[in-house]
Amino acid sequence: MKTEYEILIKTSENDNVGIVINPAGIKTGSVTQNGIELNEFVPMGHKVALTDLKEGDAVIRYGQTIGYASKTISLGSWVNETNITLPEPPKLDLITIKENHLPEPEKLEGYTFEGYVNADGTVGTKNVLAITTSVQCVSGMVDFVVKRIKSELLPNFPNVDDVVGLNHTYGCGVAINAPTAIVPIRTIQNITKNPNFGGEVMVIGLGCEKLRPEVLVPENGEESDILYLQDPKFKGFSEMVEGALNLAEKHLRKLNARKRSVCPASELVVGMQCGGSDAFSGITANPVAGYASDLIVRAGGSVFFSEVTEVRDAVHLLMPRTASEQVGKDLLNEMEWYDAYLETGKVDRSENTSPGNKKGGLSTIVEKSLGSIAKSGTSPIVGVIPPGERIKKKGLHFAATPAGDFVCGTLQLAAGMNVHIFMTGRGTPYGLSMVPVIKVSSNTELSNRWHDLIDFDAGRVATGNATVEELGWELFHLILEVASGKTKVACDQLGIHNDLVLFNPGPLT
Amino acid sequence: MKTEYEILIKTSENDNVGIVINPAGIKTGSVTQNGIELNEFVPMGHKVALTDLKEGDAVIRYGQTIGYASKTISLGSWVNETNITLPEPPKLDLITIKENHLPEPEKLEGYTFEGYVNADGTVGTKNVLAITTSVQCVSGMVDFVVKRIKSELLPNFPNVDDVVGLNHTYGCGVAINAPTAIVPIRTIQNITKNPNFGGEVMVIGLGCEKLRPEVLVPENGEESDILYLQDPKFKGFSEMVEGALNLAEKHLRKLNARKRSVCPASELVVGMQCGGSDAFSGITANPVAGYASDLIVRAGGSVFFSEVTEVRDAVHLLMPRTASEQVGKDLLNEMEWYDAYLETGKVDRSENTSPGNKKGGLSTIVEKSLGSIAKSGTSPIVGVIPPGERIKKKGLHFAATPAGDFVCGTLQLAAGMNVHIFMTGRGTPYGLSMVPVIKVSSNTELSNRWHDLIDFDAGRVATGNATVEELGWELFHLILEVASGKTKVACDQLGIHNDLVLFNPGPLT
Ligand SMILES: [Ca+2]
Ligand SMILES: [Ca+2]
Ligand SMILES: [Ca+2]
Ligand SMILES: [Ca+2]
Ligand SMILES: [Ca+2]
Repeated sequence: MKTEYEILIKTSENDNVGIVINPAGIKTGSVTQNGIELNEFVPMGHKVALTDLKEGDAVIRYGQTIGYASKTISLGSWVNETNITLPEPPKLDLITIKENHLPEPEKLEGYTFEGYVNADGTVGTKNVLAITTSVQCVSGMVDFVVKRIKSELLPNFPNVDDVVGLNHTYGCGVAINAPTAIVPIRTIQNITKNPNFGGEVMVIGLGCEKLRPEVLVPENGEESDILYLQDPKFKGFSEMVEGALNLAEKHLRKLNARKRSVCPASELVVGMQCGGSDAFSGITANPVAGYASDLIVRAGGSVFFSEVTEVRDAVHLLMPRTASEQVGKDLLNEMEWYDAYLETGKVDRSENTSPGNKKGGLSTIVEKSLGSIAKSGTSPIVGVIPPGERIKKKGLHFAATPAGDFVCGTLQLAAGMNVHIFMTGRGTPYGLSMVPVIKVSSNTELSNRWHDLIDFDAGRVATGNATVEELGWELFHLILEVASGKTKVACDQLGIHNDLVLFNPGPLT
Repeated sequence: MKTEYEILIKTSENDNVGIVINPAGIKTGSVTQNGIELNEFVPMGHKVALTDLKEGDAVIRYGQTIGYASKTISLGSWVNETNITLPEPPKLDLITIKENHLPEPEKLEGYTFEGYVNADGTVGTKNVLAITTSVQCVSGMVDFVVKRIKSELLPNFPNVDDVVGLNHTYGCGVAINAPTAIVPIRTIQNITKNPNFGGEVMVIGLGCEKLRPEVLVPENGEESDILYLQDPKFKGFSEMVEGALNLAEKHLRKLNARKRSVCPASELVVGMQCGGSDAFSGITANPVAGYASDLIVRAGGSVFFSEVTEVRDAVHLLMPRTASEQVGKDLLNEMEWYDAYLETGKVDRSENTSPGNKKGGLSTIVEKSLGSIAKSGTSPIVGVIPPGERIKKKGLHFAATPAGDFVCGTLQLAAGMNVHIFMTGRGTPYGLSMVPVIKVSSNTELSNRWHDLIDFDAGRVATGNATVEELGWELFHLILEVASGKTKVACDQLGIHNDLVLFNPGPLT
């Protein structure tokens, strides 16, 4: 256990700042293992100058410039958002797009999980009855019906894990002809195709809404899978509820016949995300996730990483990993689209860092980005998924989404994920009922304190109790266990699940 | 009962279209009570040409141009969105703003209801424990805690009506420094001050979010009313839940001591809104609501009407009703702000009409607007409330909100309403748990069919069974009954309630 000493680590050979590892921080006057004497107290996860910095000097972490000293910072002083300034983001039109001719990742054979094979070839990791909606107006009704189905019908269908209302705030009172309306619409459509719903999604619509319920029925579904509350056949609320229960029963019967079977790990579709990050996220949780990501890709599976504003400042580092010119173009297009989108609101990507990030030691969005992209591992990026679109082939993808946790999770659900990995440093009760969410802590202190909320402690890398490689393999094995339904994640054990949050870049009317 | 005949009504003397009243529509060749022979079948609520119209002729309803004939329309033919074009909206900079020197509305004395008087002088109509949040991340936790409080604590506090989680999708992953961020932030803040929560709101925050939980505590609240999930004192989820239950119990004890007392009708703050409108809305439900609105204002109370895109095309008709130059300026400012907001999404107010509106006979946003503003009655407009702001004085106000039902309702909650009136023609299960929602149908057919979902049938005006004045008084009395807790509205009886939907004009990050 290295934590008995004053530990300062570098994330790359050329760094001129070190990161405090000790949970209690390092006190003024203490000397670290590499001989630096601290001029002031610096908390855990924060940065210490490893050299004297003049005003304008680059502050280097992960071997990259994360900002510039805005005043003199002497050796052993605290480097944070008060004494560094944000560098300009890489100019997109100066980035060259080319064919990279990347080597194929080394094959990893023989790993399997037990999943539900669907008619469309996708594989589910849960067996869930989903009730989607064409409009927010019916969400009270959906909540009511879900409760009744859970208490009255679900006990008769023991193979079905859960009943979930896919409530959202779109459908009417929105600019449905706005050029960006395609984003929320295809998101709602593609969520119904998530492998965990087995193609048995039912729709509750109103009847007069702008978004037509008919466009929400999955491919193998029928018109009769839609219940319109305004259907003249329903004389009042109780008949609507009865209609919904009958429809639910039909789908529950089909879902109940699903059985798990052994599937190759190549059927995994894993969404990677982080939220409430700290300075450890980029050293522990994200690199561990990145290692696991590489293993999944080597096994022939699929992984998304996301969060445009956390990739924007590191996009030049991802370009050499794009598997084709087209992927490079697509990646830059998504960055460009988001720059323009933020500009309509008169803001830029510096809005991303939160007070919690700063408190945790992440001074700039550049520093946060460099840590964030670590979760993409080292595999070639074979595709870019625009917001709300669905994955089309296997391998590592960038799914372009906002960084907000539930917005990103909702878009990853639409993209087709069947397992969700969520990295956190400061802690969040994040949970989804549609797919299992494995919560990975970036530090052991959080994992110990939130013993019943965290599924995996990646903080063991910082304390020297394990390597990134060891924990990457451990996480990979946990993913297979969870995908097989053999290990229940914390949020499912406790029953804490959040609502979907739709990305609607267009205006309300 | 006039409905035995073929009835076509005019909404104003100069109209050149009539509205079909018969529930089954009017068949080809039928002759109406005013001698018009129909050239084709026209459904209920739809328009019939009362004269021959040439291409370019104005189509007149409510004495106003609602569009122009796009082709020849002969006497007795169906007038709808396929043969009329939308007129230009009134140009805001050509509208003159002036002091109108309006007469005081005639005083109405002696009407009372039994409400909960709050320390800040407002009066509640329900007694509700509200749990607000600073960030979407905690919404799963809030849902969990609300369920536990309802089952374990609420039975011990019989004077408390309900426990409500004020979940929303703001707080982190948002551009909190965008110029428009003030809108969602003040909305969340002002909702905590709603009179029905008695100043006893508790806050569940995470700790690292951008929106600080500290800004959400109501005036008489304390720092200790906030529970931060990241508070190091909580060792895991069960301790967080215990902390939330303890905090809830403290507030429930105080709320349980509230008692209803007789209050003048001047303490009513009524939010008026419509959704799923049809062509009857502007003849029945909205004029009835407008009559009741005038009564409330005459009794010294307050009323909001809202929905900018439904007022925009009729704003020149509202200007003569503004009580001062300032109110006129404020009204035009809100129109201008919204025009610009829609433009950022490359759309305009023509986005408002929904397929249901058109099916119900509302061909253009102009026609819809003219019917919509009928709910403002005839009283002077004494103030304009920007989105998310709170009412500052008594009387009729325009609360500037989007037209989307739950976005509008959420903003009216923030503005301080204690009773909500919701007009519908096609039907919606709209319900809020924070304030009583009186659902008014514009036609008797809906009211009969949705017998357990509609509270008040304004369709009786069209069938000739009652006048606008009679039903206006009846609705006014119902409002007093409901505000006193003596009549429970349909959605409260059934327990169907929707989530809040926040208006965030800014981008996600
Ligand atoms: Ca993140
Ligand atoms: Ca995130
Ligand atoms: Ca409306
Ligand atoms: Ca509305
Ligand atoms: Ca909910």
